[in-house]
Amino acid sequence: MCELLGLNANTPTDICFSFTGLVQRGGRTGPHKDGWGISMYEGRGSRSFHDPRPSVASEVADLIQKHAIKSNIIISHIRQANRGRVCLENTHPFDRELWGCSWVFAHNGQLKGIKKWPLEFYKPIGTTDSEYAFCWMMDQIRREFTEPPGRPQALWRFIKGLADQISELGIFSFLLSDSKYLYAHCSNNMCWITRRHPFGVAKLIDTGDTIDFRDHTTEEDVVTVITSKELTSDETWNVMEKGEFQVFRNGEPINFRT
Amino acid sequence: MCELLGLNANTPTDICFSFTGLVQRGGRTGPHKDGWGISMYEGRGSRSFHDPRPSVASEVADLIQKHAIKSNIIISHIRQANRGRVCLENTHPFDRELWGCSWVFAHNGQLKGIKKWPLEFYKPIGTTDSEYAFCWMMDQIRREFTEPPGRPQALWRFIKGLADQISELGIFSFLLSDSKYLYAHCSNNMCWITRRHPFGVAKLIDTGDTIDFRDHTTEEDVVTVITSKELTSDETWNVMEKGEFQVFRNGEPINFRT
Repeated sequence: MCELLGLNANTPTDICFSFTGLVQRGGRTGPHKDGWGISMYEGRGSRSFHDPRPSVASEVADLIQKHAIKSNIIISHIRQANRGRVCLENTHPFDRELWGCSWVFAHNGQLKGIKKWPLEFYKPIGTTDSEYAFCWMMDQIRREFTEPPGRPQALWRFIKGLADQISELGIFSFLLSDSKYLYAHCSNNMCWITRRHPFGVAKLIDTGDTIDFRDHTTEEDVVTVITSKELTSDETWNVMEKGEFQVFRNGEPINFRT
Repeated sequence: MCELLGLNANTPTDICFSFTGLVQRGGRTGPHKDGWGISMYEGRGSRSFHDPRPSVASEVADLIQKHAIKSNIIISHIRQANRGRVCLENTHPFDRELWGCSWVFAHNGQLKGIKKWPLEFYKPIGTTDSEYAFCWMMDQIRREFTEPPGRPQALWRFIKGLADQISELGIFSFLLSDSKYLYAHCSNNMCWITRRHPFGVAKLIDTGDTIDFRDHTTEEDVVTVITSKELTSDETWNVMEKGEFQVFRNGEPINFRT
């Protein structure tokens, strides 16, 4: 089991507060000590930090917490290895390029037999089920859409279909982004919250730290945070159901018919 | 004009000393203030740090200098933008996956007309000539070799041929790695040095700092550093010639017939 953390916002936003809670689970309040990673989009590019060491002991994690790098889309992951040894190339998030966009993926779960599925274009660098599944999805998307579809709903439905297929092999909770949208799929343990005006106060479960979002936001800001387990104790999180797929854009969940 | 820095060693080695010299050129002793990046291999994976801000003012560059992350192959770049605006997706090094290996590339120069060349598999995320040329090379390598060739010389000659073709468009000094070998091509401003037992003392031109490599090495260590301009004043660097292509492995230059 691993832990996922995602952010989608309508204005570049830092993830310091949520990330501070998450890293505690990487060796202190949680057992996810087998590395961590974070990818933050800036335009079409993404900037990633990976460390195969526990996040609570990582100077790079420390840097992320102290220096507020702002982004509209962020995907982070802390790992408790089950398949694939602890090393840099097995550290999520993974990324690949398609249509000149950076795609980023992080996964929680195990997928029995995924490695028998044929790969064509994208090959895994490490040995995790997760990166293999990501490569398989990217292969299918590349074959179906030679360029970004005019109506993005076609792409969203296609990704949901791929998630359904892979889910038959086990637990497939993931965060994925193509640099425009943030996608979340739940097998288990996924929840999200959208914060907007009027902002309030929240308390981190893992550290007891509190934040007053009014000090850090404007009335226009809309920010969604998605995670494996609620990070704050005094807010109401939307718990995702098994098989649920959600698309986020500009900080908001998008309703569409799958 | 930009500045390149590469390292290839037979044992994981940190680049702190050389990198400290390089970052001075990113806004202090040199004009290369339009971002910087570094990629460090660990096994088949690579870990990258990118920052579109000047390296002298970057907290991430500060972290790299203080915490000695060790690697057998390192590629770094500081940018003085000529084509392509200053932003994250235009910040070198660039990376793509081929054969389940992470390929990393950084370039110094301008290539007039490269964007008219057709691309098939790999597409640039940013707008630089450099990333475009990298994508074109990766396309050709992918088409020529569906898997890593049994005799690597065939690949080396092929890459040299691609470098020759692209060089007709302008300045094409680059560092490239496929995770096994480090490749250097010179149009202008490329030099390298191989350090081995008995190690001595060296002084950084850009800061005046000195280092005694005997304090940081064993008798078995072999380390090559490749850069645009000599970093130390009291060592003899090998200056590469126009059109020269060099392959490095385990800290040593490899002689082969192109």
